[in-house]
Amino acid sequence: MMKLYGYFRSSASYRVRLALNLKGLDYEQTSVHLVKNGGEQLAPAFRALNPDALVPVLQDELDGEAATLTQSMAIIEYLDEVYPDVALLPAQAIDRAYVRSLALSIACEIHPVNNLRVLKYLSATLQVTDEQKNAWYRHWCETGLAILEQKLATDKRTGRFCFGDTPGFADCFLVPQIYNAQRFKCDLSGMPTLMRINQACIEHPAFIKAAPANQPDAE
Amino acid sequence: MMKLYGYFRSSASYRVRLALNLKGLDYEQTSVHLVKNGGEQLAPAFRALNPDALVPVLQDELDGEAATLTQSMAIIEYLDEVYPDVALLPAQAIDRAYVRSLALSIACEIHPVNNLRVLKYLSATLQVTDEQKNAWYRHWCETGLAILEQKLATDKRTGRFCFGDTPGFADCFLVPQIYNAQRFKCDLSGMPTLMRINQACIEHPAFIKAAPANQPDAE
Repeated sequence: MMKLYGYFRSSASYRVRLALNLKGLDYEQTSVHLVKNGGEQLAPAFRALNPDALVPVLQDELDGEAATLTQSMAIIEYLDEVYPDVALLPAQAIDRAYVRSLALSIACEIHPVNNLRVLKYLSATLQVTDEQKNAWYRHWCETGLAILEQKLATDKRTGRFCFGDTPGFADCFLVPQIYNAQRFKCDLSGMPTLMRINQACIEHPAFIKAAPANQPDAE
Repeated sequence: MMKLYGYFRSSASYRVRLALNLKGLDYEQTSVHLVKNGGEQLAPAFRALNPDALVPVLQDELDGEAATLTQSMAIIEYLDEVYPDVALLPAQAIDRAYVRSLALSIACEIHPVNNLRVLKYLSATLQVTDEQKNAWYRHWCETGLAILEQKLATDKRTGRFCFGDTPGFADCFLVPQIYNAQRFKCDLSGMPTLMRINQACIEHPAFIKAAPANQPDAE
């Protein structure tokens, strides 16, 4: 069985749980607590598994070969290639590029700038106040999501979900980012399309099963 | 012919030029100056093309349909799907996931945190000194590249290039990041594997043609 190293509140782990659940794949979870014990992702045992010291890590066995996979987007692309029965990416190249660009606009433009270690650097090294740190978080999150709203509100391919009426690749990135945005009290009032899609997602069984609150390590 | 909107020094544009050149594809370039005129990427005409206000944008025509593509990684995946003659990703799923994870460790963990608009926010809003801003840049760049060095130095799949002896997907991300690292005077002395691969790349015709200094808008 596949083994997922993650953390209930890590949005990159959440993305991979969503992809696994949408595909109906079974997996065991191992919790890597990002805060306790000075951050379990920084421990030598975990670094041996992933030198990046980041969750998630997925272990799979393919044709008798053990694979240790890192980086949520690379993992989801892998799952879509190896377990194609429920496809997360669309069939046509132009659409695939579009959906990947939606996901990357979250994975590259919003999430990394607000990652735990970046927020820590702001506090510890640059000694910004909590207020400044929270304003930083909201700035990147609200700016990035506002652009995504504009795209999804105007693109004909938007349906009940980010692409058409079936949950897929981009939804696996959107929902964890909205979860984070709400945790940090971002202003999402001007984003009706994102909120409508998010609502459709969180009512779906695969998304319910992947929700942070429903994980074994939830606090 | 394909049309690439980019900027000579933008590392995301540089990645796409590399992919196009490695595949031997023809393209016209339009320069979007990221600094002049308050940043041409922020002008309404460019935002109409890409609401993200980011370069690169690639325009292609596929089966008679015009496509406007954004996000460098999505563009490179598209090129690899539509113009597969020179493959940038390996054939096997596990290797593809590995190579994508190398690229993402640059595209997600290093580059976004040091993007122009983030550096601007540090200076303008958080009023950090130039010294603090440069230390920030070097911190994320050096930390991220050191991890990549460790991976590439120990993985059996590393060859003359990031994956084997043919330049590919991960090299398109590595070389622009090394270029940036050198511009910001990062300490790369403990990274012999990265520097060796970078040297092999920059001597290759596709990389020479894509180098910032060799673009029509180079300063």
